Amino acid sequence: MSSSVIALLYGPDQPGLVAKTAGWIHQRGGNVLHADQHLDRDENIFFQRVEWQPSSNRGLDEEMNSFRSLVVDDLGMKLRLARSDQHPRVALMVTKEDHCFHDLALRQRAGELDAELVGVLSNHDTLRGVAGSYALPFVHIPVAKESKAEAEARQLDWLSEHKIDLLILARYMQVLSPEFLDKIGCPVINIHHSFLPSFAGAKPYHQAHKRGVKLIGATAHYVTQDLDEGPIIEQDVTRVSHRHGTKELIERGRDLEKLVLAAAVRRHLQHRVLVYGNKTVVFD
Amino acid sequence: MSSSVIALLYGPDQPGLVAKTAGWIHQRGGNVLHADQHLDRDENIFFQRVEWQPSSNRGLDEEMNSFRSLVVDDLGMKLRLARSDQHPRVALMVTKEDHCFHDLALRQRAGELDAELVGVLSNHDTLRGVAGSYALPFVHIPVAKESKAEAEARQLDWLSEHKIDLLILARYMQVLSPEFLDKIGCPVINIHHSFLPSFAGAKPYHQAHKRGVKLIGATAHYVTQDLDEGPIIEQDVTRVSHRHGTKELIERGRDLEKLVLAAAVRRHLQHRVLVYGNKTVVFD
Amino acid sequence: MSSSVIALLYGPDQPGLVAKTAGWIHQRGGNVLHADQHLDRDENIFFQRVEWQPSSNRGLDEEMNSFRSLVVDDLGMKLRLARSDQHPRVALMVTKEDHCFHDLALRQRAGELDAELVGVLSNHDTLRGVAGSYALPFVHIPVAKESKAEAEARQLDWLSEHKIDLLILARYMQVLSPEFLDKIGCPVINIHHSFLPSFAGAKPYHQAHKRGVKLIGATAHYVTQDLDEGPIIEQDVTRVSHRHGTKELIERGRDLEKLVLAAAVRRHLQHRVLVYGNKTVVFD
Amino acid sequence: MSSSVIALLYGPDQPGLVAKTAGWIHQRGGNVLHADQHLDRDENIFFQRVEWQPSSNRGLDEEMNSFRSLVVDDLGMKLRLARSDQHPRVALMVTKEDHCFHDLALRQRAGELDAELVGVLSNHDTLRGVAGSYALPFVHIPVAKESKAEAEARQLDWLSEHKIDLLILARYMQVLSPEFLDKIGCPVINIHHSFLPSFAGAKPYHQAHKRGVKLIGATAHYVTQDLDEGPIIEQDVTRVSHRHGTKELIERGRDLEKLVLAAAVRRHLQHRVLVYGNKTVVFD
Repeated sequence: MSSSVIALLYGPDQPGLVAKTAGWIHQRGGNVLHADQHLDRDENIFFQRVEWQPSSNRGLDEEMNSFRSLVVDDLGMKLRLARSDQHPRVALMVTKEDHCFHDLALRQRAGELDAELVGVLSNHDTLRGVAGSYALPFVHIPVAKESKAEAEARQLDWLSEHKIDLLILARYMQVLSPEFLDKIGCPVINIHHSFLPSFAGAKPYHQAHKRGVKLIGATAHYVTQDLDEGPIIEQDVTRVSHRHGTKELIERGRDLEKLVLAAAVRRHLQHRVLVYGNKTVVFD
Repeated sequence: MSSSVIALLYGPDQPGLVAKTAGWIHQRGGNVLHADQHLDRDENIFFQRVEWQPSSNRGLDEEMNSFRSLVVDDLGMKLRLARSDQHPRVALMVTKEDHCFHDLALRQRAGELDAELVGVLSNHDTLRGVAGSYALPFVHIPVAKESKAEAEARQLDWLSEHKIDLLILARYMQVLSPEFLDKIGCPVINIHHSFLPSFAGAKPYHQAHKRGVKLIGATAHYVTQDLDEGPIIEQDVTRVSHRHGTKELIERGRDLEKLVLAAAVRRHLQHRVLVYGNKTVVFD
Repeated sequence: MSSSVIALLYGPDQPGLVAKTAGWIHQRGGNVLHADQHLDRDENIFFQRVEWQPSSNRGLDEEMNSFRSLVVDDLGMKLRLARSDQHPRVALMVTKEDHCFHDLALRQRAGELDAELVGVLSNHDTLRGVAGSYALPFVHIPVAKESKAEAEARQLDWLSEHKIDLLILARYMQVLSPEFLDKIGCPVINIHHSFLPSFAGAKPYHQAHKRGVKLIGATAHYVTQDLDEGPIIEQDVTRVSHRHGTKELIERGRDLEKLVLAAAVRRHLQHRVLVYGNKTVVFD
Repeated sequence: MSSSVIALLYGPDQPGLVAKTAGWIHQRGGNVLHADQHLDRDENIFFQRVEWQPSSNRGLDEEMNSFRSLVVDDLGMKLRLARSDQHPRVALMVTKEDHCFHDLALRQRAGELDAELVGVLSNHDTLRGVAGSYALPFVHIPVAKESKAEAEARQLDWLSEHKIDLLILARYMQVLSPEFLDKIGCPVINIHHSFLPSFAGAKPYHQAHKRGVKLIGATAHYVTQDLDEGPIIEQDVTRVSHRHGTKELIERGRDLEKLVLAAAVRRHLQHRVLVYGNKTVVFD
């Protein structure tokens, strides 16, 4: 199939937005593959995801530039564009737990993720062998309190040098500094092992066990400077009972973490997630 | 809010369909409230639900007629139209169990269903009091093997006389004949107390218990001449274990039946369900 | 079936507890109908629910007194006893929303709840008609800030006079004072319309919408002096998306609230819930 | 912790069974770690799982023999015994799909499964590399129509030689013959990629897509001579919509298959599953 353009756009609602974007594509001989829109009636904001194949006479770059001119200049909306023939370059950050790491690497191999896995950064050397088993570069950058700024500088250098488009914290057990997030220049997805906003912070399964909840959860979200407060992409829960101690919660939680993180990453890579304010619109 | 038009349309895909319908609405001064489409790539069929407020200069009837001309005559597609200011007229058929009956009547009262409840038909007199408690007309038409044709004729008379737009089988324990279905002229929604296609036919909870399944289900579907084989609108399941005998399955199943039937009815009444072949497209 | 005794007991683990209780019942000619136990290995506490029919030669009162002597005096454990032939007397407190009220009343009628519904207390007069439709006494006691102590005294008088065994807050929108809870002398179950500990306090659906969660929940818990912090009996969640405004969350939440509250009440009435610390053991 | 004995027993109910087994253990100085029982009131069959540490004076073999004498000889019940210090020896059979294979191998490595993975049999050579990455022996035995009996003889030889206690069909795409099942002498667990009894046989996701179901499922069951009809251990489902073609059902189904098979295997290995008739009792 020939390549397509994917646009995610949003802005104040105005009459005829669907007609204008669809009409523009149609008049230029393009073929819409998928279009979905959402109107937030409280805020009066219009959101759209549209994917189309341009006429074969046109280059993708020209098409994208012209569409940008329509949406941003003429309609005054925010726009993100992607092309289906370019796979985002993804890096993982991990610490010692390997279940999300294995899960993402196996999915990527099975063709479930439209991405290129570029490498793995870790504050410990524990998972070097796992990276090797998938033939992935592994960079060990220890992070101590006094050397954190220096470590983050090295991480940023590596990410920038390798032109990373998405950073996934696959159970990375360090808080990223505001400075790091300021400079990184690409989205960061984290998996938190609780149903946020419950049990933010450290040791969520211990907190859950102490509170005696009947369901435990996991939350994948974009990382912002407010710890565990970023826009939520995906959540899920599973039932537990008094028979489950903290150890069993941790074990059962692993499956949740894998599924929730993979679902969030898959949708991000398919350009289905729009962030506005501190929330997400996730187009199915 | 002023009234709107809701259109459900489908047919072979062709270039520019979204642009054509959206453009038509926009040029006539209409305001799109909701639009969703789906392309079945295997069958190459395009499905769309679009809801809009016509310009205040135009009457709803004129708008609907003109739109029909565009979609059916010019584009060659199938179309169903509805107007938001007309609430469908709904009848229930029940036998002896009252949980779905109470559930729908209470939801209608609470404003959850955009419908007028017109009356209740039953082959037993058992639930006359329940109908009375909601001030609903109750018609008792006994159905015996030898008098079934006659009973169905009386049912059809009543439904036709009361201009029913939707018939809901809220645990009606009789099979409707092909002749009845031929003549009724409106959709019929049934709730089957299993996860179809498992356990079609009689006593599904007994079948489920005998097979030892670990989840039980319920299925809401449009009724066709093939018993329990009609297009599925909604399904759900709940977990059971060896501790649950048939009696417990029946009790737990009641909650499922209520939720699944209500969800299907709500979406039908919101004109979100398109049938094609033996399947449904349910727009969120 | 003849009557049975139900015992809920817990205390520090010690060798042979199962053998001692089961042996005691067997030697006296009793017949165990159900037995389940749990050992919390972190805290080394043993929990048991056991239900048995005493030998026909023995009265239930004698059996209960003797068992109490075994468990409390000899084994040093905490014990709660109930008899299957006595249905707990239940009162509801409501405000203006009627969905949980209808749900519990209909379940009680359908024989799902082993309880006698004795009456309804409300701080508004709104639901008097609903109470009437179930032939339930309805007591309207307005609660204003300055008169709260007096109102609670009237509520307590009514509850005490009617020998209430369980008070259910079926969307009662007032906080009960510590003094009220001190004096009430029976358990109080509340339904909170969020997945606690997320979104405690007022307007949880608004909080959930603002945070952009992808699942909403409901929590049934025993009421303690710490608002929304009591032992959790049951929780459940349902999926939502960016398409759901606060109004839709409230509507979808109603179904959750009904199911979660009914499940918690049913298990409490079946004497399946043991509270210790701030948590529950819920025997299936 | 010292070793324990696990007993699974069942048979016609009789007075004092709990007292007799618990009393026997207690009198010999044993310490019950877990006990759960179930009474099927329709069939009047009593089921129990009990796990205990014998007194340190006794050997596990002596304890097991004596307990067998009590349960089988004196009480006339069926019994299966296991000891916690012996991990079952497990073999996998696979064809070309690797997701369940990876999933089980990673769980075994992570310590989630109390088992020794002994090797992998396959009718294709495709997954030899995967087996190698876990350092597992891989035996390729092609299966053609005319050579099936011979191939099965070789499989049985290998299984017998390696003293396999459990055979897992991790997406093995061949039907095992009745003769094979007669001779194998150990349980066989299969994962079927549908919610049985719906869509038994070949290509269940295609069947599901054609029927237009709103949930797809997976079922783990013991293999018997009736294809896809054996006792069900675990099932689960996930929601799908008209947007999901067969390809998406297959992709989403993989996650279900992994979770359902792993849950069934874990419970089997913990000696929590009792088969009777064509059903299972699964102790939590």
